[in-house]
Amino acid sequence: MNFKLSEIVGHMKPSEIRELLKYATSNDIVSFGGGMPDPSTFPKKEIREIIDDVIEKNSDQALQYGNTAGLDTLRAELKKFVSRKEGIETDDDKIIVTAGSQQALYAIGRIFTDPGDPIITESPTYVGAVSAFNANAADMIQIRMDENGIVTDEVERRITDLEGKGRKPKFIYVIPNFQNPTGVTLSLDRRKHLLEISENHEIPIVEDNPYGELRYSGSKIPSIKSLDRNGNVIYMGSFSKIMSPGLRLGYIVSSEEVTNTVNLLKQALDLSTNTLSQFIAYEYLKRNIIDRQVPKSIEIYRNKRDVMLASLEKYFSDVGTWTKPEGGMFVWATVKGDINTSKMLMSAVRKGVIYVSGPAFTADNSHTRSMRLNFTFPENEKLIEGIKRLSEVVKAEEAKISNQAENKI
Amino acid sequence: MNFKLSEIVGHMKPSEIRELLKYATSNDIVSFGGGMPDPSTFPKKEIREIIDDVIEKNSDQALQYGNTAGLDTLRAELKKFVSRKEGIETDDDKIIVTAGSQQALYAIGRIFTDPGDPIITESPTYVGAVSAFNANAADMIQIRMDENGIVTDEVERRITDLEGKGRKPKFIYVIPNFQNPTGVTLSLDRRKHLLEISENHEIPIVEDNPYGELRYSGSKIPSIKSLDRNGNVIYMGSFSKIMSPGLRLGYIVSSEEVTNTVNLLKQALDLSTNTLSQFIAYEYLKRNIIDRQVPKSIEIYRNKRDVMLASLEKYFSDVGTWTKPEGGMFVWATVKGDINTSKMLMSAVRKGVIYVSGPAFTADNSHTRSMRLNFTFPENEKLIEGIKRLSEVVKAEEAKISNQAENKI
Repeated sequence: MNFKLSEIVGHMKPSEIRELLKYATSNDIVSFGGGMPDPSTFPKKEIREIIDDVIEKNSDQALQYGNTAGLDTLRAELKKFVSRKEGIETDDDKIIVTAGSQQALYAIGRIFTDPGDPIITESPTYVGAVSAFNANAADMIQIRMDENGIVTDEVERRITDLEGKGRKPKFIYVIPNFQNPTGVTLSLDRRKHLLEISENHEIPIVEDNPYGELRYSGSKIPSIKSLDRNGNVIYMGSFSKIMSPGLRLGYIVSSEEVTNTVNLLKQALDLSTNTLSQFIAYEYLKRNIIDRQVPKSIEIYRNKRDVMLASLEKYFSDVGTWTKPEGGMFVWATVKGDINTSKMLMSAVRKGVIYVSGPAFTADNSHTRSMRLNFTFPENEKLIEGIKRLSEVVKAEEAKISNQAENKI
Repeated sequence: MNFKLSEIVGHMKPSEIRELLKYATSNDIVSFGGGMPDPSTFPKKEIREIIDDVIEKNSDQALQYGNTAGLDTLRAELKKFVSRKEGIETDDDKIIVTAGSQQALYAIGRIFTDPGDPIITESPTYVGAVSAFNANAADMIQIRMDENGIVTDEVERRITDLEGKGRKPKFIYVIPNFQNPTGVTLSLDRRKHLLEISENHEIPIVEDNPYGELRYSGSKIPSIKSLDRNGNVIYMGSFSKIMSPGLRLGYIVSSEEVTNTVNLLKQALDLSTNTLSQFIAYEYLKRNIIDRQVPKSIEIYRNKRDVMLASLEKYFSDVGTWTKPEGGMFVWATVKGDINTSKMLMSAVRKGVIYVSGPAFTADNSHTRSMRLNFTFPENEKLIEGIKRLSEVVKAEEAKISNQAENKI
């Protein structure tokens, strides 16, 4: 039979990245496309030990349904963790555990926006946020970034503008540290300005911080939530980049009102988060494995970042520019010529290299000359080879364009 | 700050059950409230062995992000499983793995209904379905049941009625085997009639089958999906009752169109299902542990059901009636007198027994004299003691009411 689907389906668009993941496992292809951690950073020995202990001592709980808000013990550890790492002082009942921070994004989108409601995001922004906000038919107003992150003066201008039209944005969504996809970090001044805007206009800030622990150079900048005195900031964290993404664990730190409302929605979404995963994360924090594990990841990723930046310097300087992230997983590269990276993608796949093109990170298909390059997953030699191939693809594309131009003359 | 939440939040109501789960762990209380398996049925030794093997051999995949649709190997095993168990012939790409069947319910609600759209369900129906459909602001039209399940003549009448008003329902949602909350099984004739209605009116059937494997008496009835020749049925399964609910695994079997659309939504909801859980489920099927495990659960649950039914016979005959399920997890009890089970609940808690009152399973707060009693979680002595207490609570409530009536005279 022909199914008649809801209108909301029309707002969802397939993610180029999820499609690309299919290629990512092929051996002869260098994939800069995913946002996957290097599996060598997975604490597999420790996870195995934890699971053995948990199944031995707590299987009745660990294999059973759990509370919708999350394991009490895990929430208590998270409270200590965000205090110690991010200077965020909160209470257990202001924390809710989610199925990755992707579920947090969807839930925040769902409980704040009705179809057509405006929200503010960076341009470009995380593709999963685009999915989550599109799935709620929110109207994403994307504000440009520079080397210090989202341009807050422009945020303020746009908000004033929208308010004048009776369309106050429901929240401001930012990834302040090593942003996905640009790798750019929001400066302290801008963080303070954003908080000021939030207070003046009474618009909450959604601070997404999946990569904060992964800093390879430069100095830590305080989280916006730690500067927040009025409960304006909804903070999101994730275990995907500091433990394992396959265990699907994230969390929200906010007010009790937000926690309770997300809880209510989560009863509809999935009843509760994977209990075994929560036991693993609890022990991971409690036994302080995290403080031994993350420095190892930082070593590996710093080196990979340096290899990618050196390769870009060597092979890409004449065809494009790129950001120089102090942490995280991504470099954002922009070609000099009038090349559309979406259209170039199939040529790149044929040459054996994959990236995610700029428009995937937007609601308006802008950033057509840019692409996101992940440096955490590929091995070092692949990083070099991939950038070399990418440079060749761009040059071939430039030649094609200049040929077409000549043919027209 | 005061957050301004979306309109959709107003459609969500807190689940009595999730609230009750808080009491469920207290030792002196007998909880008939949850829908939890007996932890003694968890295949903990087998799960531990599987995890050891998986972490040893496949940790790079098992701890990594997975495909949104689910692990290919698991989907291939699920294809064989639904063929072998339910006579459903399908293809891997018509199967999508979800975070429990709760996520499947939410996703189906989301991709089929816009706010206000009518859908048909049983009255009463699964509380998680009420949550999922409310969270999408669907208009639940609930049709009464008898001892053979949903009254299909009435389904047809209501659909014709609604169509006359230009309000064709988006789907018909049923739990044919050992329904939650009533324990009633839909007869073969009614299944066929429902399929006929679906075909004549071009309305899909959503067949939710979490308890199908747990039959303690009587003979198996074919799934509606196995009778479906035109792709009208969207089938849902779950690992919660045959392996472990804490691992949060369910699945949908439908058309490629539905799989792809749910996939698109799932990219927004959580990117992918817990990978480690999927590896566990794959090995659980592949090693055929399931066929050794489920009969053990059936033994335990058959005995518990019998204990509950005998206790009801002994203590409850003079105050109420109840269903006699051939499988699953629930008995549906209805008091004879004019007692409101929601109002009675706090007295019950004080007497040390918990249930879920009838209105929780409805959109219109009907079934005020009924309650759902779970028999799979409590131990045998608790089952007896709980029914005894429940009978006392009802009698006390009857006495209170007759006193009030006398006082009025």
